[in-house]
Amino acid sequence: MLDYKLVEAVSAVIRLGSFEKAAQELGMTQSAVSQRIKLLEERVAQPLVVRSKPIKATDAGLRLYRHFQHVNLLEQEILTDLPDSLENTHFRGVSLAVNADSLATWFVRVAEVLFLDYNLLVDLSVADETNTLDLLKQGTVMASVSTQDKRIQGCKVKALGAMRYVTVARLDFIQRYFPDGVTPSALRKAPAVIFGRDDDLHQRFLKKNYRIAAGEFPTHVVPSSEGFVNVTRTGMAYALVPENQVKPYLESGELIKICDKLETRPLYLHYHNIDSQMLKAVVNVTQAIAMMELAKIKE
Amino acid sequence: MLDYKLVEAVSAVIRLGSFEKAAQELGMTQSAVSQRIKLLEERVAQPLVVRSKPIKATDAGLRLYRHFQHVNLLEQEILTDLPDSLENTHFRGVSLAVNADSLATWFVRVAEVLFLDYNLLVDLSVADETNTLDLLKQGTVMASVSTQDKRIQGCKVKALGAMRYVTVARLDFIQRYFPDGVTPSALRKAPAVIFGRDDDLHQRFLKKNYRIAAGEFPTHVVPSSEGFVNVTRTGMAYALVPENQVKPYLESGELIKICDKLETRPLYLHYHNIDSQMLKAVVNVTQAIAMMELAKIKE
Repeated sequence: MLDYKLVEAVSAVIRLGSFEKAAQELGMTQSAVSQRIKLLEERVAQPLVVRSKPIKATDAGLRLYRHFQHVNLLEQEILTDLPDSLENTHFRGVSLAVNADSLATWFVRVAEVLFLDYNLLVDLSVADETNTLDLLKQGTVMASVSTQDKRIQGCKVKALGAMRYVTVARLDFIQRYFPDGVTPSALRKAPAVIFGRDDDLHQRFLKKNYRIAAGEFPTHVVPSSEGFVNVTRTGMAYALVPENQVKPYLESGELIKICDKLETRPLYLHYHNIDSQMLKAVVNVTQAIAMMELAKIKE
Repeated sequence: MLDYKLVEAVSAVIRLGSFEKAAQELGMTQSAVSQRIKLLEERVAQPLVVRSKPIKATDAGLRLYRHFQHVNLLEQEILTDLPDSLENTHFRGVSLAVNADSLATWFVRVAEVLFLDYNLLVDLSVADETNTLDLLKQGTVMASVSTQDKRIQGCKVKALGAMRYVTVARLDFIQRYFPDGVTPSALRKAPAVIFGRDDDLHQRFLKKNYRIAAGEFPTHVVPSSEGFVNVTRTGMAYALVPENQVKPYLESGELIKICDKLETRPLYLHYHNIDSQMLKAVVNVTQAIAMMELAKIKE
């Protein structure tokens, strides 16, 4: 059988990308961590990590790392059925990836229920759409919320519903930039705010509804869901934002919809195909909250 | 003289990390972009990009890219002194890097003033401390807010003041996890929320004040400044957060300080040492807002 002390060391180095951090987390010296990895590499007769900055896993290292995560998960489930011997270890952890807009809106409620009802500490990764699925493939996370519906090998996928996006701005911004209404020529001069150069939601919205191409309108770039809303509240831009994120500002009149056109983005939950009570809880809770908070998908 | 059409193409590929996106932005075909780069590589007699995924710049490519950015900056300044020939190009852009907590608090006001008073569209990058300075070194941004004070070659640095962090939780969380006050043993069992595995602010706080080492307390990981606050508002964790970010919740009583201990983190503005009116505006505005919003640095 594998020596799990060694596997734990190599997994920590791969997860944290550094011998120093792994040593800190495991409470041992760097040279002890390094020795353990060398020992394991000798036993499996191949390198497990590439000594670059940050440290990278080889394919074999990655396989071992994933295996360690699965063993850990199974172990945690057994431990919850046993009486708690140590009061301060009664929490278990679950790693999940979400897109930024989900975290800024409905996903906090998922984390809340997982903690309060299931004693789960959440370890969230926020990434753009492609990367959330990469984290799942690598085994860094157990489940991932993504706009992609294509099933990943070894995983299952469930439709969650759709985020609805509305276009909002402050009244003085609308008066200044859209005095004659939301026309293509006004949209070519009005500063928008986009999440990043990769974010195509705003582009698709302008192309579909107004036939304006990428690069034909001025943009601020603010890679933060809340930064987005805050920038819009200063009056320096209009923005396409999740409807439920700006609800309070729409109700108070601080922000106003510039038009009635909606953009929707369907979301899917991808998760490892493992028979695990914890993962079942994650899937059930995520689906239940999504059913309340997201719109029905219609494509 | 260099053919700037070619330099523009290679710069777009380096900035966007992809031929496809560069072609889209420049409004040409991928093969046209590729041809321009080959042409330029022939002229300078060395490769400018590495054809990996994503595309990486060679040292020579990076030097050309930085040069292109500087030329662009100088050009934009000349153009503002000339009469506006095209109504929709009267905005100029400025690329800045900030840490997430700054964007979630005081930095939005900097963006606001830069836009409203200087007609600048901001292109923000949010990164952790080390990466904001890497972006500056690479020439991806003109200026960067960082907790590091060490001057970077070719750049200047100015002290901005310090962010003040307070430790907050909901009343029911405090009653449940700190019934006998904030003691080391209670802190070993109370779930905290940290920004990421790299975030050492909470660790330093517990080590300095309560002698609790890393790994000795349960944590949620939520890599979003506002996610942090929202998670704390659900009652699933206590958190060390910027004082000005939670002011409204402290005032309404929704969140309460669990102790009077403060953590401070000094911030510095690093910027390229270039004689540019636009950069001067960025430095002056950032310093002025920081003076109002941040605490005095005392180490």
